[in-house]
This record gives sequence, structure tokens and C-alpha cells, in this order.
Amino acid sequence: MAAAIRIKGVLSPVVTPFKADYAPDTERFVKQCKWLISQNVGLACFGTNSEANSLSVAERVELLEALVAAGIDPGRMMPGTGCCALSDSVKLTAHAVKLGCAGALMLPPFYYKGVPDEGLFRNYSEIIQRVGDSRLRIYLYHIPPVSQVAITLPLIERLIKAYPDTVVGLKDSSGDWNNTKAVLDNFAKTGFSVFPGSESFLLAGLRNGGSGCISATANVNPAAIDKLYTEWQNADADAQQDALNRVRSTFAKYPMIPALKAAVAHYAGDPAWGTTRPPLVELDAGQRAKLVDELTAIDFAMPGLQARR
Amino acid sequence: MAAAIRIKGVLSPVVTPFKADYAPDTERFVKQCKWLISQNVGLACFGTNSEANSLSVAERVELLEALVAAGIDPGRMMPGTGCCALSDSVKLTAHAVKLGCAGALMLPPFYYKGVPDEGLFRNYSEIIQRVGDSRLRIYLYHIPPVSQVAITLPLIERLIKAYPDTVVGLKDSSGDWNNTKAVLDNFAKTGFSVFPGSESFLLAGLRNGGSGCISATANVNPAAIDKLYTEWQNADADAQQDALNRVRSTFAKYPMIPALKAAVAHYAGDPAWGTTRPPLVELDAGQRAKLVDELTAIDFAMPGLQARR
Repeated sequence: MAAAIRIKGVLSPVVTPFKADYAPDTERFVKQCKWLISQNVGLACFGTNSEANSLSVAERVELLEALVAAGIDPGRMMPGTGCCALSDSVKLTAHAVKLGCAGALMLPPFYYKGVPDEGLFRNYSEIIQRVGDSRLRIYLYHIPPVSQVAITLPLIERLIKAYPDTVVGLKDSSGDWNNTKAVLDNFAKTGFSVFPGSESFLLAGLRNGGSGCISATANVNPAAIDKLYTEWQNADADAQQDALNRVRSTFAKYPMIPALKAAVAHYAGDPAWGTTRPPLVELDAGQRAKLVDELTAIDFAMPGLQARR
Repeated sequence: MAAAIRIKGVLSPVVTPFKADYAPDTERFVKQCKWLISQNVGLACFGTNSEANSLSVAERVELLEALVAAGIDPGRMMPGTGCCALSDSVKLTAHAVKLGCAGALMLPPFYYKGVPDEGLFRNYSEIIQRVGDSRLRIYLYHIPPVSQVAITLPLIERLIKAYPDTVVGLKDSSGDWNNTKAVLDNFAKTGFSVFPGSESFLLAGLRNGGSGCISATANVNPAAIDKLYTEWQNADADAQQDALNRVRSTFAKYPMIPALKAAVAHYAGDPAWGTTRPPLVELDAGQRAKLVDELTAIDFAMPGLQARR
């Protein structure tokens, strides 16, 4: 394994703000990213919860460049760069490396279902060879509930063997702890970075050699999640995990992305944040009010974001 | 409904040839498209079987322009233009309209699963309004086994009501005759064009008001499929359908796209045709030999393509 400093801790698949005409809202995006960084949370921008697959390649390139231009450290960024088209994945990945990003979080091509591991291996292999940059660090993105295309244990093993300095980690959004545990047990001890895709598995992951988590709700509850990441060996770690779970499960009652955006809109006092790009639909007024009531009932109020107002 | 001439009959989701480095092979693509046109088969290029979702927007634009530059009538083209990103769908659809294509075959955004019909309606509605061209004819593309996102009957009804001159048809690749029948029964009588996504349902579709079919195997068996389209009211129509089914079911024993390409490679005497872009994998030598044996056993030999050699 390369000796380069590896990104770890808590990362957020940053929600992407849109203007009323559904164009990406660069100004609000930069502001949100700066706030997350101030909460010690890294930027897994262009993830599932970022509506990244509703953005064109050019839109993603422009947003990432805006973050760097705003002075945010690319060493705290792990942008999503895995697309259906090999040519798009190569372009986005090369761009992220050129900007100095700590890593690239890579979905498998997700249109065709039931493809063989050989085809997925070729996809990643071609990207690595075409990018052709020793700084590239790939984090595989396993999210079968959405992508419907899995990153299997044999595929991980084959990729690590072929590209030990490049294929260095995985985000597991399967929601299946048994799978996360299997990835940890098989690969973590050799330095492979495993990030559960939800803070629900943060503590269990850390106790089994995990590297942190990359979680939707890190968009709204960053400080508390980072606190558990820092204090996971403390006596109150299980209580901290329980508190995180209460927030998570409240958001999980709603369509996650619209709910995250509704919360940012509410606590930042900035209704424009509520907009989602089609095919997603924002929460309606009733849902928004209910979400805030439920969050208030568990004493959650995004204090960091409120301070930003 | 508009009085413009509506494309109908048999269309092929044209297989896309790749060079050894996986770049699209424009020359072979144009040649294949000209051959299909000579067989009276229209070009639903950039469909699922075209590996379209493995192509970037720029790659699709270039290939479509090459067809028009080669003198092929855009009135015989229904390119796939539906992407995950609204911005990409708008770009491809506007481009197809500008070139004079007969229609655009549009997948719903397919990354996010379980999205509400309202979100899909907004997607199509935004595309129609942004393209803003009265020549646009949209054919909805229902292929839940792959896209995992369905075009429901209520969504079709809502889109037809909102855009009666624009949303004029649907390709049904559900593989579920009951769904095709329901779409036909509900919408065909008002002029909505319904294309089953397989020639297996060509005759049944025509008997219920269908407009033809858009089928993978039209890449390899175009003349016979078009013959049934033309002669469906003849006494031997059921026998013709049975013969088509034998060819289809032979290909269906293999991964469809690699098998189609292997057949073109074999009968055109042009091995380069076998290449598939990752994440797909070409048939191996044993599979190729077995496929040809099985096709030979049913007296199938792509005579039109052999004549091209």
C-alpha cells in the first residue's frame, strides 16, 4: 500500500442546492460545503444524496472547481465520479485527481443489470489505466438498493490485487451489516478503508477496523456524528450511537433527499434549499411541518447551521 | 393529435460497434444502419441494446450526426435521448429534433428508485418545455427489468393530456403482454403509437392496434420481422410469428447484446463487431460456436448481412 495520507472520519454526500429553474446553485453549495468542513466533516460530494446522477458531467466539473476556487482543501474531498459511461467516469475521475482530491467514490456502471464481475473489473481497470495518475485513490461504492449492481467480495479482492495502491477503500451502503462486516474482516487489516454508508453502523464499524462513515445525515447532524467518530472508545459511545440513531430514523421516515433539504431550508431559514431536481419531488408543507415537529421532539435543531443564519 | 406522419413498423435498437480501445466505431455503425434501412427497418439507435447508457452525451451526438451526414433519412430515426440527468436529456433531445429525427425514445431517469410519478412527469415536462420545438415527438420507454423505474398508465395518461401533440407513443419492454395490452386498450384508439419491445409480441400487438415493434433481434433478423409487419393479416401470420420466435429464443439463451454482436461478427465475417464496452463482456469462443450451431440448426444465417460481405 502507498504511504500517502488516507482520508478518514466522517464524510457527507453533500446535498446539491438548485435554483428555481433547477440549475445548480453554486453559491449555496460552496456555503454548505464550508460549513460541513467547519464541522470536521469531509465532502463526499456528488454522492447518491447529492442527486449527482441528476447532474451532467459538466455540471459536476463546474461545482467541484467552485469548491477548490473557494479555497476548500481538496484533500478533504472524495467526489463521486462513477457513471454509466466509461468515457464519463474517466473524465470526472481524471478531473478530480487533477484538482488534488483525496479520492474518488466510484459507483459501478448501473444501467445494465446482472453484468459479470469481469465486466465491472474491466470498467474500473480501464478507468485506472486511462487516468494514469499515481495519485488516484478509488473508493468503490456498493449501494445495491439503488444501483442494483453489487460490488462483490471477489471483485474487491481482484481489484485490490491488481491495483493495490489505487483501489484503497469502499463505501458500503448496502444497509446490511453482515456485508460490511465481511468487507472489514476480509480487507481492513491490510489497510483497506471501509466506510459504512450510514452512521447507524459507525460505532460497529470502528470497533471492527472501519475508517469512519459516509452518511446522508452528516448533511444535517455533522458535529454529533464526528463526535462519536472521535470518542468511539469513550464509555458513552453506545449512548452517543443511540442518539445518532434517533435523528437518523426520524429522517428515514421521509424520502431522504427531500427531507435533508427541507431540514437545511428550515434551520438555515433559507426556503430555496428545499428544491430537488426531477425525478425527485420536494416535501410538501405538511411533511415539512411534521418533520420539524418530530426533530424538535428529539431536541434536534441543527445548532451549527442555525448559527450560520 | 398533430397530423404529421408518424414513424411506425419495425425499428432496431442498433448495436453500437466499438474499436479495440472501446471508442465508438463510426464507420461500422453507419454501415450497419444503412443495411438495416435497406431491410426496411427504422433506427431506434441508442437504445438499451445499443449500449447507449455506456456512451457519453458527446459520443451519441457524434454518432447521430454521422448517420445524417451519411445521407440516412432522419425521418427513419428514433434515437434514445432519456438520461439520468435532466440537462443531458434536454441536450440530446434538442439535438435529435434539430437533426429532424422522427422521434425521441425516452427512458425515465433511472438511478433513483421508487420516485413518484409527479417527479417523472416533471422530468418529461421540463424536457418538452426546454426543447420548445413543435416538431418534437416523444416515445416513452418502459423497460422496468432494466431501468427499474416504470412508466405507469396514470403517468402516460397525464403526459398525453398535457402534451397531446408531443407525447405520442411508448415502447413497452416490460416483457409483460398484459401491460402492453393495457397500454393498447387505453391509448391506441386515440392515435397513441405502441411498440412492443420484442417481435414476440409483434403479431399480438398489431391485432390490438399496435404500431410495429422495436426489437433487439431486428439487428440480426430484420427482413423476416418486417415481413410479418407487412403481412400480419395473411393466413400464414401465426406461422411467421412462430419462426420469428425460434430465432429470438435462440439469442435469448445468451446475454443478448454480446450475442447480437457475435452474430453480426460471424455472418458479416468481421470479428471486430464482437467487442462490447464494459461493463458488458463479449461471448467467449465456446459460446460463439454454440450460438452459430444453434442458429444453423434452425436455418438462420442472416442472409442479408452475408450478401454485404
